[in-house]
Amino acid sequence: MQMPFQLTILGSSSAMPTSERYPTAQVLNVLGRFFLIDCGEGTQHQLRRNRINYSKITHIFISHLHGDHFFGLIGLISTLSLQGRRGELHIYAHSELQRYTKFQMEFLGMDDPGFQIIFHPLNFKKPQVILEDKKLKITSFPLKHRIACCGFRFDEQPKEANIIKEMIKVYNIPIREIKNIKAGADFVTEDGKLIPNKDLVIPARKPRSYAFCSDTAYNEAMIPEITGVDLLYHEATFAESEAIIAAETFHSTGKDAARIAQKAEAGKLLIGHFSSRYKSPDHILEEAKAIFPNTEIGFDNSSFEL
Amino acid sequence: MQMPFQLTILGSSSAMPTSERYPTAQVLNVLGRFFLIDCGEGTQHQLRRNRINYSKITHIFISHLHGDHFFGLIGLISTLSLQGRRGELHIYAHSELQRYTKFQMEFLGMDDPGFQIIFHPLNFKKPQVILEDKKLKITSFPLKHRIACCGFRFDEQPKEANIIKEMIKVYNIPIREIKNIKAGADFVTEDGKLIPNKDLVIPARKPRSYAFCSDTAYNEAMIPEITGVDLLYHEATFAESEAIIAAETFHSTGKDAARIAQKAEAGKLLIGHFSSRYKSPDHILEEAKAIFPNTEIGFDNSSFEL
Repeated sequence: MQMPFQLTILGSSSAMPTSERYPTAQVLNVLGRFFLIDCGEGTQHQLRRNRINYSKITHIFISHLHGDHFFGLIGLISTLSLQGRRGELHIYAHSELQRYTKFQMEFLGMDDPGFQIIFHPLNFKKPQVILEDKKLKITSFPLKHRIACCGFRFDEQPKEANIIKEMIKVYNIPIREIKNIKAGADFVTEDGKLIPNKDLVIPARKPRSYAFCSDTAYNEAMIPEITGVDLLYHEATFAESEAIIAAETFHSTGKDAARIAQKAEAGKLLIGHFSSRYKSPDHILEEAKAIFPNTEIGFDNSSFEL
Repeated sequence: MQMPFQLTILGSSSAMPTSERYPTAQVLNVLGRFFLIDCGEGTQHQLRRNRINYSKITHIFISHLHGDHFFGLIGLISTLSLQGRRGELHIYAHSELQRYTKFQMEFLGMDDPGFQIIFHPLNFKKPQVILEDKKLKITSFPLKHRIACCGFRFDEQPKEANIIKEMIKVYNIPIREIKNIKAGADFVTEDGKLIPNKDLVIPARKPRSYAFCSDTAYNEAMIPEITGVDLLYHEATFAESEAIIAAETFHSTGKDAARIAQKAEAGKLLIGHFSSRYKSPDHILEEAKAIFPNTEIGFDNSSFEL
């Protein structure tokens, strides 16, 4: 069975919620680890609704310090404390969020929530690997918004190919060669015959990737950071009829998002962060699909499996 | 047509939300004026869902400074600011909430939200009339919780009786007497006949009243403040099986709430603020009804008209 790489949308609204849409928050489940991306008001409610256990969340990424992207954080921390959490919570955000959260926690008499919160300040000037291990690499990169704002890219690490066990016997492959073959080497038998790598291995599954871009104006500068992602979330706050407002407020239209997806050669585009002026974002979707057909709306409580 | 006196429940959960229940918030519509009582996380979302226009809310009452009763305030203020509100917003709360909110607003660069916020510190030692005009009187009174906590009582002002117009002609009542008759006086005709007041007027409708008690341990001391209310909201965080935890945490059981309603001779009891440990609060309702039959659950998004 393939390990999960699943995105769940908790909120698809922009600054003001609607009766159907919460502000921005998403959860990415990578191989059973849950990453919370932005944390608008109501995130803990939406986590419950999507049956995502709070305790599984170990890392939170806050793109920027507009309220609709972090007002839900203090409520979530309070609840984690009430639940008796012990494990560390890592928060990647603007360094100022630490000051803000510290003030709130002191005010609430929650100086010691019972678990450690580790703040990791983001770099808003250039791309940076913010977390890397054997299985996963997470990179932050600057977006183009009214205030300092980062996107995030999540990449599964490349896996080695699997050697076909029968071939070890067939060609009498010594153990010391197996590592090289897994890494792509051909093999020369004792009697000098070259066996091409492709006959010896089952190639590893292509590593999966997801990138999150909210909030941002149309910004080609970030394309190198999101090139080739399987799934790209890009905000599309406005329809093309509001293109001027989009530019003024450093937001994007559906078309902007689609152009970026196209240039970045993304596999699929998800749009969200819709202005509360739109009862339905269907026309934004149509405008995006005209340019990048494989576009979907990231509705609240929808999930996307890679 | 009778003017509205309608309570809408926005949240019926205690500290931790469930997938069905938001933290505490209620809206009381008194004669077309909307009073927000507590403002847990997600209040603005729930206001939208209940089609209550944010701009109509002019007064907010925060019972105490546990997060589940005020975490939604900064989001609501931000949204009001984005909407271009101009009218004053009055907030009745612990004086510390002003410091907290000021810090948040400065952090968000919202020093001037475009409208005036007027904080009114509550008195947690004794009952106090906090707002009174011709139509309405609002009183705060201390509850018994782990931290300073107030309940609120909303009373329609008594109305004068309506004089039966035909009687003015029948008995030749001079204009100067009308005020007295409306206030309850009998009338003596020119030929000395006493006409009892009840024959001259249609009595005014009984003034309606609502009292809100959350969060509190069983507390008979507050009974004088809530006596005779038509509708009493009293928290019932726990079932009787958790009576010890209720006492330790200064919360109430359904039975506690019912006993208070009974002693206060309330017309009807609404219970809420249920612990997230209960999937359904039905058994708490049953325990309350055994003592005070006219009890209902104040489910999220339910309304009660007086």
